[in-house]
Amino acid sequence: MRPVAIMGIGKTAFGAFPDRDLRSLAVEAGAKALENAAARPAQIEAFYLGNFAGPSFTGQNHLAPLIASALGLNGVPATRFEAACASSGSAFFHAVSAVASGLYDVVLAEGVEKMTSQTTPKVTEILAGAGDLSGEVKAGATFPALFAMIARRHMYEYGTTREHLAAVAVKNHANGAKNPAAHMRKVITLEQALAGKPVSDPLTVYDCSLVSDGAAAVLIAPLERASEFTAKPVRVLGVAQTSDVVALDEKDDITTFQAVRSAAQKAYRMAGLKPSDIGFAEVHDCFTIAEIIAIEDLGFVSKGEGGPFSLAGNTCVRGSMPINASGGLKSKGHPVGATGVGQICDLVQQIRGEAGERQVKRSHVGLAQNLGGSGATCVVTILGAA
Amino acid sequence: MRPVAIMGIGKTAFGAFPDRDLRSLAVEAGAKALENAAARPAQIEAFYLGNFAGPSFTGQNHLAPLIASALGLNGVPATRFEAACASSGSAFFHAVSAVASGLYDVVLAEGVEKMTSQTTPKVTEILAGAGDLSGEVKAGATFPALFAMIARRHMYEYGTTREHLAAVAVKNHANGAKNPAAHMRKVITLEQALAGKPVSDPLTVYDCSLVSDGAAAVLIAPLERASEFTAKPVRVLGVAQTSDVVALDEKDDITTFQAVRSAAQKAYRMAGLKPSDIGFAEVHDCFTIAEIIAIEDLGFVSKGEGGPFSLAGNTCVRGSMPINASGGLKSKGHPVGATGVGQICDLVQQIRGEAGERQVKRSHVGLAQNLGGSGATCVVTILGAA
Repeated sequence: MRPVAIMGIGKTAFGAFPDRDLRSLAVEAGAKALENAAARPAQIEAFYLGNFAGPSFTGQNHLAPLIASALGLNGVPATRFEAACASSGSAFFHAVSAVASGLYDVVLAEGVEKMTSQTTPKVTEILAGAGDLSGEVKAGATFPALFAMIARRHMYEYGTTREHLAAVAVKNHANGAKNPAAHMRKVITLEQALAGKPVSDPLTVYDCSLVSDGAAAVLIAPLERASEFTAKPVRVLGVAQTSDVVALDEKDDITTFQAVRSAAQKAYRMAGLKPSDIGFAEVHDCFTIAEIIAIEDLGFVSKGEGGPFSLAGNTCVRGSMPINASGGLKSKGHPVGATGVGQICDLVQQIRGEAGERQVKRSHVGLAQNLGGSGATCVVTILGAA
Repeated sequence: MRPVAIMGIGKTAFGAFPDRDLRSLAVEAGAKALENAAARPAQIEAFYLGNFAGPSFTGQNHLAPLIASALGLNGVPATRFEAACASSGSAFFHAVSAVASGLYDVVLAEGVEKMTSQTTPKVTEILAGAGDLSGEVKAGATFPALFAMIARRHMYEYGTTREHLAAVAVKNHANGAKNPAAHMRKVITLEQALAGKPVSDPLTVYDCSLVSDGAAAVLIAPLERASEFTAKPVRVLGVAQTSDVVALDEKDDITTFQAVRSAAQKAYRMAGLKPSDIGFAEVHDCFTIAEIIAIEDLGFVSKGEGGPFSLAGNTCVRGSMPINASGGLKSKGHPVGATGVGQICDLVQQIRGEAGERQVKRSHVGLAQNLGGSGATCVVTILGAA
């Protein structure tokens, strides 16, 4: 395996864009990534597109060649990867693996989702397709309900409180408010978060991520070719994708995600690093409880300590372990298929020192954790300055 | 790139199975492939699932970990690949590439689709998602209409006739009638084919492939490890995936598919072979005209000669170049996401000499061509006896 680096990044803003279609969002992000890496379309040897549910949200399937051809990438293998909310994390994993193994030199990995043209009940139904239809969904358990059960159990096992959850929301809203590309730029107080409208007890609207439109792309190439593309290559130190059962009732313990633990273990081993070497992270806060569990499963804190650690301010931009300095899925937005590559773009911005007001101090090595469903897929990536 | 071989194959029958769900079909095929290769689930390092529209047909998304965990493959990267009707061709391409490059040793590639629980109009709508929604579909052009336009143009340019198209249907029905796993085992005459109920002029029901349920899987490993799995490894001599524009109106010429020509060129180069070295082929006859164009684009006949070549009987099992000895999508069935890997299974059966009544004579080297949409994706694979 040869060293691989990210040579360019491109993102649309995340938000509700009634006048934009899926293809135009994807083309904007892809073209920006090419431009950011000073690359020409003719240099791209393969196109890896993450998208969760374009056909259900928009009716359009077969998205990879549709977008590739609009980007001028005609002819290359153009493939859509679907792994629920980890769809573009998976596209990125496969893209990096292909370049590392020598299959290709220069590839484009991208994620896109266009969700806001559907009503909230329809969005909830489409998202529920990432759970187990024959059990969970049949029983009426949509994702807020599944993560509410996870939160309840975490509270029971470890004494996690509503305040702990609310602290995650407050911090992510504060970060997102400083992110010009975030969907919801709104500071909230702990009192507001605690008084949020209930969605699925104990989760309120402030515990749930957003329904967004958006796209994000990265240009990937062997590190040795960096000088052709950028003065600031960001190296992929480790990346792993793992899987687990889909249904919550098939899991031994719903307060931890085995797929996250195994992906983290593999990525740490590949990078030759341990959790304390990581300076900051973007984690998959589809719900506030998911961020608390993520920082435990990634080894940043001991099991059960995620809530108190968050409430104490350690995960703020100026804290000891900044988590979701971008605002996270909660505030930056969660166009599901775009989220994984979006996190990668956020890490790259931090490592390059381009994160402005949200810039973390220990920005040398960052980690991204992208979750699919209630933990059936996980992609963990560790990036570092080259 | 190291030599790669197929160590085991597994298929369900293709057909309409009202009592079977998508997962049970996929698990049956996957388990058969493992058994056929004498492999244990614990040996599988990654799972590549091709599926076109499971979420639209069944509501269930996030299919790869759902199926992987039911097969006992928990923990490994489990990813769904979508490339319209070439979805499992694409999964196979990525799986072979990963093993060839040394990323993994033992992987399972599979395709599945469950279509028959939807009404025909709904199926047509879902399939149309593989075309260009903003142009073709908006104008009412479903896939039969798109391929009818292609047929008309081919008739105009090259003198192709209704008899030429019908000859493809008659031959594929004759082959499928001898295939115990085929969806429609019914011999038809040229007269019947010519008198078929119109679907989209000049195409009749006998020119259109079937709406089917089914799954197919293959176990892939480095050739050097063949002795652990099988006495009859089948080598992957060449494989390529390419792309093109989605909309017909963006193409210079609709009587040829650029993606097929470029995938074939790449696969031939990789295999060090030319069209005349191929003994038989499984091609993507989603419509009869598609088979005629395929044998032209693959270089088996000159441009425009596909119709007369077929009518003269050359593509029959006992002809000079047997095409779709399995019965093809027309008669074997076309569970879209399963078709690509299904073709690979058919080639392996022939190369192993296990095709019974349908066994071709020159079975040493076979080619499979799997098409997505009206030519926006193509995967071409060349297999040979090891």
